[in-house]
Amino acid sequence: MRPLAQPHQSPVATKVIAFDVFGTVVDWHGSIVRELETLYPSIDGHAFANAWRAGYQPAMARVRSGEMPWTRIDDLHRLILDDILPKFGMDHLDEPERQHLNRAWHRLSPWADSVEGLQRLKRRYTICTLSNGNIGLLTNMAKNAGLPWDCILSAEVFRAYKPDPDTYLGVARTFDLAPNQVMLVAAHQDDLDAAHACGLQTAYVERRFEFGAQHPKDVSPSPANTFHARDFNHLADQLDQV
Amino acid sequence: MRPLAQPHQSPVATKVIAFDVFGTVVDWHGSIVRELETLYPSIDGHAFANAWRAGYQPAMARVRSGEMPWTRIDDLHRLILDDILPKFGMDHLDEPERQHLNRAWHRLSPWADSVEGLQRLKRRYTICTLSNGNIGLLTNMAKNAGLPWDCILSAEVFRAYKPDPDTYLGVARTFDLAPNQVMLVAAHQDDLDAAHACGLQTAYVERRFEFGAQHPKDVSPSPANTFHARDFNHLADQLDQV
Repeated sequence: MRPLAQPHQSPVATKVIAFDVFGTVVDWHGSIVRELETLYPSIDGHAFANAWRAGYQPAMARVRSGEMPWTRIDDLHRLILDDILPKFGMDHLDEPERQHLNRAWHRLSPWADSVEGLQRLKRRYTICTLSNGNIGLLTNMAKNAGLPWDCILSAEVFRAYKPDPDTYLGVARTFDLAPNQVMLVAAHQDDLDAAHACGLQTAYVERRFEFGAQHPKDVSPSPANTFHARDFNHLADQLDQV
Repeated sequence: MRPLAQPHQSPVATKVIAFDVFGTVVDWHGSIVRELETLYPSIDGHAFANAWRAGYQPAMARVRSGEMPWTRIDDLHRLILDDILPKFGMDHLDEPERQHLNRAWHRLSPWADSVEGLQRLKRRYTICTLSNGNIGLLTNMAKNAGLPWDCILSAEVFRAYKPDPDTYLGVARTFDLAPNQVMLVAAHQDDLDAAHACGLQTAYVERRFEFGAQHPKDVSPSPANTFHARDFNHLADQLDQV
């Protein structure tokens, strides 16, 4: 597959590679399904995982609009969890059980290529998260999964959720770089489009089974992206040619 | 040397170890002297390093008091640099030279035990910075020096400079911990006293030559600290016994 490098965005300028995390680095769907199936085998893990995740964008939208004050993802995950438990007949879960389940987001497993790909990219670039997840969640996840970040950046640092420009431009400002010296890697075109609008380079990574093996998603390339990669090793291969 | 563990602060609860950086993890004085002696051999590197560092607390005090708006350490370092250059007959330095010299703080060398000690502590604890240095500076320093942080926390994250309680308590809040589950490691008793007042555990590390081999500082133990260690390996040795 040909890199979609654009002449006006020379990839040689890249200094920092920032990564979306949920779905891009870690398999939230498969991990939540496995937690559910282990703890509560009678529940439809696939439906539960999707219901939990489906509450995520609306909850952040309430924060972005000012309807809710600044709230960390851990607390948004908990609000959504408390909301969906009755719908799955799980209203009997006590406080410690709810706390443990909510921390499943700290224990998400990486995709098979993630750790090796990040280790390769880290040799040449500064690699950081740019996630709406909170700092503690991302740090615990990294320690658990062996993700070798140089730096944990997050909505919590910038007090703004993606796709607010302050998040993408915040990475550039943090490192005193021009926006096009930063690349966002994500499995979500809307995230990349917002980063591109801020002047960042972008790399789309195919995570065809983000919503489960039975529900493949469209991963066809957008010409707007600087790179399109099957996985992190394929991205590292392409950047090795630059 | 006997650990100064106190019964009311059980060290077994420690989850996160936060480190002061300048002087505690890295040798700012020796590193700045070496940069000066290489670039500008006619200048008294020792006097220059101390003059630069001496401007640091007053500059942060102006931010803390509200006299100056929020300003990152990179920018405070530059203000102090521009102020002291004429006093050393170096007013002729052009903009690229000043920028390069100011980034010397991104290139500080670790003390001999720092990397090994951090690697040991990282196996059992989450290790993070808690420095007044900005995120970009601390990340570049870590990459350059091989410091294996799980997470870069900084005054820039909390928008407050140490010894503001929001910085020490900010670490605990970031990880949803009680203050006594966090330990601050520093070579400066005033930093540790402020952390102790917030309920954190504290470990003093002897950095006798922080101001140069010719100017050893007093490193005698304070009974207020939970631990007193010669270096990071000695701290890891003591925590291995807990």
